[in-house]
Amino acid sequence: MTAFKYFQKQWTPVINEYLNKHLANEVDDQKISQIMAYSVMAGGKRLRPLLFLATLNTLGKEITEDEIRIACGIELIHTYSLIHDDLPAMDNDDYRRGKLTSHKKWGEAESILAGDALLPMGIQWIAEGSKSAELVQIITQAVGPNGMVGGQYLDIDSTNNQSVAGDAKFINRMEWLKTGCLIEASVKMAAVLVGASQIEEVKLVDFAKVFGRSYQIYDDLVDVVESSQEAGKATHKDQEKGKNNTLTLLGIDKSRKELTDLIKQAKDDLNGLNGEVLAGFLDLYQKVL
Amino acid sequence: MTAFKYFQKQWTPVINEYLNKHLANEVDDQKISQIMAYSVMAGGKRLRPLLFLATLNTLGKEITEDEIRIACGIELIHTYSLIHDDLPAMDNDDYRRGKLTSHKKWGEAESILAGDALLPMGIQWIAEGSKSAELVQIITQAVGPNGMVGGQYLDIDSTNNQSVAGDAKFINRMEWLKTGCLIEASVKMAAVLVGASQIEEVKLVDFAKVFGRSYQIYDDLVDVVESSQEAGKATHKDQEKGKNNTLTLLGIDKSRKELTDLIKQAKDDLNGLNGEVLAGFLDLYQKVL
Repeated sequence: MTAFKYFQKQWTPVINEYLNKHLANEVDDQKISQIMAYSVMAGGKRLRPLLFLATLNTLGKEITEDEIRIACGIELIHTYSLIHDDLPAMDNDDYRRGKLTSHKKWGEAESILAGDALLPMGIQWIAEGSKSAELVQIITQAVGPNGMVGGQYLDIDSTNNQSVAGDAKFINRMEWLKTGCLIEASVKMAAVLVGASQIEEVKLVDFAKVFGRSYQIYDDLVDVVESSQEAGKATHKDQEKGKNNTLTLLGIDKSRKELTDLIKQAKDDLNGLNGEVLAGFLDLYQKVL
Repeated sequence: MTAFKYFQKQWTPVINEYLNKHLANEVDDQKISQIMAYSVMAGGKRLRPLLFLATLNTLGKEITEDEIRIACGIELIHTYSLIHDDLPAMDNDDYRRGKLTSHKKWGEAESILAGDALLPMGIQWIAEGSKSAELVQIITQAVGPNGMVGGQYLDIDSTNNQSVAGDAKFINRMEWLKTGCLIEASVKMAAVLVGASQIEEVKLVDFAKVFGRSYQIYDDLVDVVESSQEAGKATHKDQEKGKNNTLTLLGIDKSRKELTDLIKQAKDDLNGLNGEVLAGFLDLYQKVL
């Protein structure tokens, strides 16, 4: 078993148990708690919390309940973004991870509010686990109008817009904002929490930037390479919906080449760090290469 | 001119200018910046930021740009809540403050995202202005599932539900969560930022709790007492929509009596504090009494 697989096997159940227990215990109203938990406990890979914890591991920091609270706060925020992206007014998706999306299961108002509840609760957990206003600044910038939500806005605004279909700069920026910012923030929060040296932080943030970029390409490739059943959601939908992304820009072969180059670059960024676990995240991409 | 009127006249333009300038300068994308600013600059009374600043004033704290940033962060969060409350899936309102609501003007996806952008940006401004993780905890708890969003959920869940129409406890709780929590947080953040004494904080939070409760009754009364043109939005709508609130529970006369009692109680809570400006907030209610 690789160091990454071992790490993943060790911490994924801890994350899942924390999320399950604390969503039940910390949300007063049973019904909205259930709606929030439905999406949070829908079987995600916990990529962002694991990335946060693996960065702590790289920097030699012990993982206690405080760090688990921060990691799970990141996952609440990620889940909020998925619920809102799936809404009828947005991507209008009926299934995610093989289950009905939140609005199909609970109704539109309920799913908007479940997202609206998960976002501040995620930030709250990060503030409480870290006692750091600086971590709050990092996460709020990453998911605000100059981050994740800004990317989603560009996506909505450019769907079925032929004028951006060949605009690599626009597409790179949109994809970075949508996916990369939260991934970068997960790594950067760990570096700031530990008080990493300048050189360690630069290397880790460089790694995160490359990983974030490569993750979006991977996610686009999953959309066409895997069958709908394997991916647990409707695939080949991006093209049908008139979405512009790196894949529609470059095509499958060049996207794979780009992904391979990025994997090499990400590994290089980890040189000189105790980065065995972090490097293991890149193995995820093998199934689309 | 009362101390309150003077305070309001002094600080309202400062708040408005800060919001206008910083939404333009701190949001990279011009279009989403415009959509956010459309609702933020729609002529709100700035009640919550003024309440935050007036509490600082009561405690003898000088107001600098940092405190203005926190105050304006609260207003961004309040505006997000209005945008989402107006959505077709929620209250489905076409007008607010005499202008088209965000989704009528810009589209539904755009208004969901404008709200999703304002919430984290508001928390960011509070974190940056205060450098305090404790203030972040206060605001995120106040707007999460056990606060404002929880109240909105109870509202949606109970609309046209006759079983709660006479349930005073349920209605009080729903109204407190929807409106009171954010008002309380505005006062409490000021007390914590300044490091108020235990006795000052208790009095101020008691005042805020009563003010929050009374503000909801006031807002319900505006809905029936004012004509649609004066209120800048559709009035008499709560009843048409099957909403349950204190007004539908008590009727107009008993609601006015309750409001009058609460005003007296709020003034009592300020005894022993330098609370002249804060007491002036209660004058607002005269127009429905």
